[in-house]
Amino acid sequence: MSELGAMQDWPLLTWRLIDHAAQNHGSREIVSLLVEGGEHRTNWREVRDRALKVAQSLARLGIVHGDRVATLAWNTHRYVECWYGISGMGAVAHTINPRLFADQIVYIANHAQDRVLFLDLSFVGLVEQLAPRLTSIEHFIVMTDAAHLPASTLPLIAYEDLIDASDGDYDWADLDERAPAGLCYTSGTTGNPKGVLYSHRSNLLHSFAAVSGDALGIVARTVVMPVVPMYHANAWGVPYAAAQVGAKMVMAGPHFDPPTLQRLIVAEGVDLTLAVPTVWLGMLQHLEETGLDLGRLKRVVIGGSAAPRAMIQAFQRNHDVAVSHAWGMTEMSPLGTVGSPCARFEGLPEERRLDLQCKQGRAIFGVEMKIVGEDGVELPRDGIAFGRLLVRGPWVVAAYFRGDGGDVLDADGWFDTGDVATLDAYGYMTITDRAKDVIKSGGEWISSIELENAAVGAPGVLEAAVIGIYHPKWDERPLLLVRAKPGAVVSKTEVLDYLRPRIAKWWTPDEVLVVDDLPHTATGKLLKTELRTRYKDYVLPTA
Amino acid sequence: MSELGAMQDWPLLTWRLIDHAAQNHGSREIVSLLVEGGEHRTNWREVRDRALKVAQSLARLGIVHGDRVATLAWNTHRYVECWYGISGMGAVAHTINPRLFADQIVYIANHAQDRVLFLDLSFVGLVEQLAPRLTSIEHFIVMTDAAHLPASTLPLIAYEDLIDASDGDYDWADLDERAPAGLCYTSGTTGNPKGVLYSHRSNLLHSFAAVSGDALGIVARTVVMPVVPMYHANAWGVPYAAAQVGAKMVMAGPHFDPPTLQRLIVAEGVDLTLAVPTVWLGMLQHLEETGLDLGRLKRVVIGGSAAPRAMIQAFQRNHDVAVSHAWGMTEMSPLGTVGSPCARFEGLPEERRLDLQCKQGRAIFGVEMKIVGEDGVELPRDGIAFGRLLVRGPWVVAAYFRGDGGDVLDADGWFDTGDVATLDAYGYMTITDRAKDVIKSGGEWISSIELENAAVGAPGVLEAAVIGIYHPKWDERPLLLVRAKPGAVVSKTEVLDYLRPRIAKWWTPDEVLVVDDLPHTATGKLLKTELRTRYKDYVLPTA
Repeated sequence: MSELGAMQDWPLLTWRLIDHAAQNHGSREIVSLLVEGGEHRTNWREVRDRALKVAQSLARLGIVHGDRVATLAWNTHRYVECWYGISGMGAVAHTINPRLFADQIVYIANHAQDRVLFLDLSFVGLVEQLAPRLTSIEHFIVMTDAAHLPASTLPLIAYEDLIDASDGDYDWADLDERAPAGLCYTSGTTGNPKGVLYSHRSNLLHSFAAVSGDALGIVARTVVMPVVPMYHANAWGVPYAAAQVGAKMVMAGPHFDPPTLQRLIVAEGVDLTLAVPTVWLGMLQHLEETGLDLGRLKRVVIGGSAAPRAMIQAFQRNHDVAVSHAWGMTEMSPLGTVGSPCARFEGLPEERRLDLQCKQGRAIFGVEMKIVGEDGVELPRDGIAFGRLLVRGPWVVAAYFRGDGGDVLDADGWFDTGDVATLDAYGYMTITDRAKDVIKSGGEWISSIELENAAVGAPGVLEAAVIGIYHPKWDERPLLLVRAKPGAVVSKTEVLDYLRPRIAKWWTPDEVLVVDDLPHTATGKLLKTELRTRYKDYVLPTA
Repeated sequence: MSELGAMQDWPLLTWRLIDHAAQNHGSREIVSLLVEGGEHRTNWREVRDRALKVAQSLARLGIVHGDRVATLAWNTHRYVECWYGISGMGAVAHTINPRLFADQIVYIANHAQDRVLFLDLSFVGLVEQLAPRLTSIEHFIVMTDAAHLPASTLPLIAYEDLIDASDGDYDWADLDERAPAGLCYTSGTTGNPKGVLYSHRSNLLHSFAAVSGDALGIVARTVVMPVVPMYHANAWGVPYAAAQVGAKMVMAGPHFDPPTLQRLIVAEGVDLTLAVPTVWLGMLQHLEETGLDLGRLKRVVIGGSAAPRAMIQAFQRNHDVAVSHAWGMTEMSPLGTVGSPCARFEGLPEERRLDLQCKQGRAIFGVEMKIVGEDGVELPRDGIAFGRLLVRGPWVVAAYFRGDGGDVLDADGWFDTGDVATLDAYGYMTITDRAKDVIKSGGEWISSIELENAAVGAPGVLEAAVIGIYHPKWDERPLLLVRAKPGAVVSKTEVLDYLRPRIAKWWTPDEVLVVDDLPHTATGKLLKTELRTRYKDYVLPTA
């Protein structure tokens, strides 16, 4: 006899989260700064009721299971309503990143075959421009009321009018838990963006993992402000996690400026907030300049790119705010690792704790990780060996939307993150480079990021970039490019002298060039592709 | 196009928990007091490696997917190894409660068709006695080493010998996540025990819910001691939850006495522990008598039966240990509600906080609850109306093992808990009675428990019991039975005078009888079935 277990069949569907919040935490608040200006206060019960109206309205527009419905919006209660309403009626919430180039927005909206677009007032002008090229969108819903609806060349519908026409007497969709719920495109630096099609199951399992104490650590009494936008990898799962536990949620709408965020944190009693390092850099400067504080804030989660050591230290030492360093990617829903304190932290001196906190953290249960060398063989978890980071789990992508990029899993189901990392015996992962940036020298790898981090400490150096240059014997050798601090003169000899005790001998750059500028992406990262183009014919000096 | 989401297929299987712990928290400790005496220290990596050997050994014994393998044991590392080893090789871990009557143990072992029994040394004598009637068990494995193996009439195998014969080079079973993983029988007071067949999926989803901050709140740095036995509804999920996050786990083996538990709590730095109220009653007395403290203990979870107000208060006021009142049942894996503090607690005076903490708590996400009247119609969530408590969710039973008891879900999939409860607007649930104990008077319900709680405050009353007695007009009316305190004389008039301002007029018992004794179950609960038998022909006085 090998029958199945006799437990209830209860598909993991996203609408269960908002129903749970409405039922058990109905009066818990959702506070938003609106795009129209002003503040809006609602609660989980009202948001659920209005999400039902969104669902019912979409059904009235003829949207059916599996259709894509797009959003182009800032974090507000209306975004949360759309998010639950779209997936709750069986459609797919395609969260478009408004910071993509216009051509990319057109590309992904057409690629996704979005039938409806919910957009904030901020984007009416943009969408009017793009509309002639948006081939699949039938309805443009502006997330505002009739009074704020602008005159337009497009047949715009006011969101409040749309949902007012529904009575909310609607049953959430009865779906296979593997049905698609959300769609988010990666903002790849090369080629067209590729879509990740999240399922109801993957979103719920991710949310279960996200609420846990070592991940986001959200509970009913938490007041959470996701500064990270909902179009940025599901705001790291916060709008699901907050509903799951009935937390109060605070959203700053289109505002990312430190004064506004600081005021909200204090006024609303925010105790947990999440954003990329750039936001926190501005916030720490603002606090230093004004002498203001962070109210009841207890913890910040920093992800998106590596949190600088000084930032972690400033939050903890100057503001008594604990930092959780997190790592993930759109293809992972997005959470992979979080650097919450473990038992080893106890009794460690601050500098050693910071060493651990600068790592990207430990895998949360549900994420399997391993590192492999160029030959695909697994490398030891010794904190030293580094290799390509592969991941596996129920909220990791299996294939890109519409099959773009072909097979992305290896024979054992592993997804290659494109990152190069170390793992240690305690499960801590450290990203050492992007795989495409690593320098492959004589069959061994040199981390461009580690070399850059070492080089910025050298006398007079403001910024450093390392790329691999063709070498007839070693395949590639490192070229170090440095920008000098204003008024400083950088000497190659001094830089190399500085590096010598800090790196392995064979990592020593074959050349150091002082340059006037280095190319960056819109988010401030070094644009290595451009550097590689600039120096593709560069010939290293012979030793 | 209505395709499925494109996320990885990653079945929720129990062995993933122990693999995760071994990989990411390998050196985190598992400390056990052994049945042979002495203390044993191991860690997640070793426990995983030995669990693999258990699995491999069972395969060698011919156990196949779906076979039941029983345990009769106290909480130790070996139990954890069996638990993961059995389900990890595709068999079903049937956790037998040694406190059942001998006949019940025979009944359930035969009903489950257990093929192997893992037993602690403590139970060798019992099993020798029962063996002639255990018709399906082929192998008796004593959880000890050869040196401690007693001479026996049975062909006993020493656990350590069994697993030493395996090299651990074994792959965990590749299973449907709905495959059965565990089996636990309810200790019903009437009729034969019925089995709940947990699936891998239900256990994993339950574990995801259990680790969350408002449920058990277990994180990597937690040191958790489940005093609740693993045979008691999966030790409330702790052996799964602890592996999921890599917590240190402390287990007292056969010891439930306060001095041993207190010593372990202090010596091992336990910060979270879980048990039924009886255990904590003894502990609080022990602390009072000795002046000892609870070391680093921060929180106790109390479940199994209602936690008395004075107990919650004593922990919090005298020992600075927070209490989480929990409710669940074997049929629910077992967690249903937990009374962790929510935002409403802030600023409340102690007595009001205690009012909330005396309730059974709020549903964790994944548990749906509603209360219905006798007509099956849902009652309001106003904290006043009480009705039968129905539950639904992915870790709630769908049917008892082998179909016992027939259909247990209603047409909408709800399971009747047999409890009568209120729900309030904030999601708080309070058990007011067992459905079979409630007094049905003129179509309205009177809670026997509430009447008893009121009556024990009356002058001279030591203990009170209320049962329903047939009444020609009202169907049933309450009969109050009271035991007097030593030396006290209880008067019916005084009791009724005492009750009058404390209960609704129509709840007033039709008669008050002073009795010499009241019958109790083995765990100290009032045995209402016996009382109803005693008074089945009793005729109430006419008014």
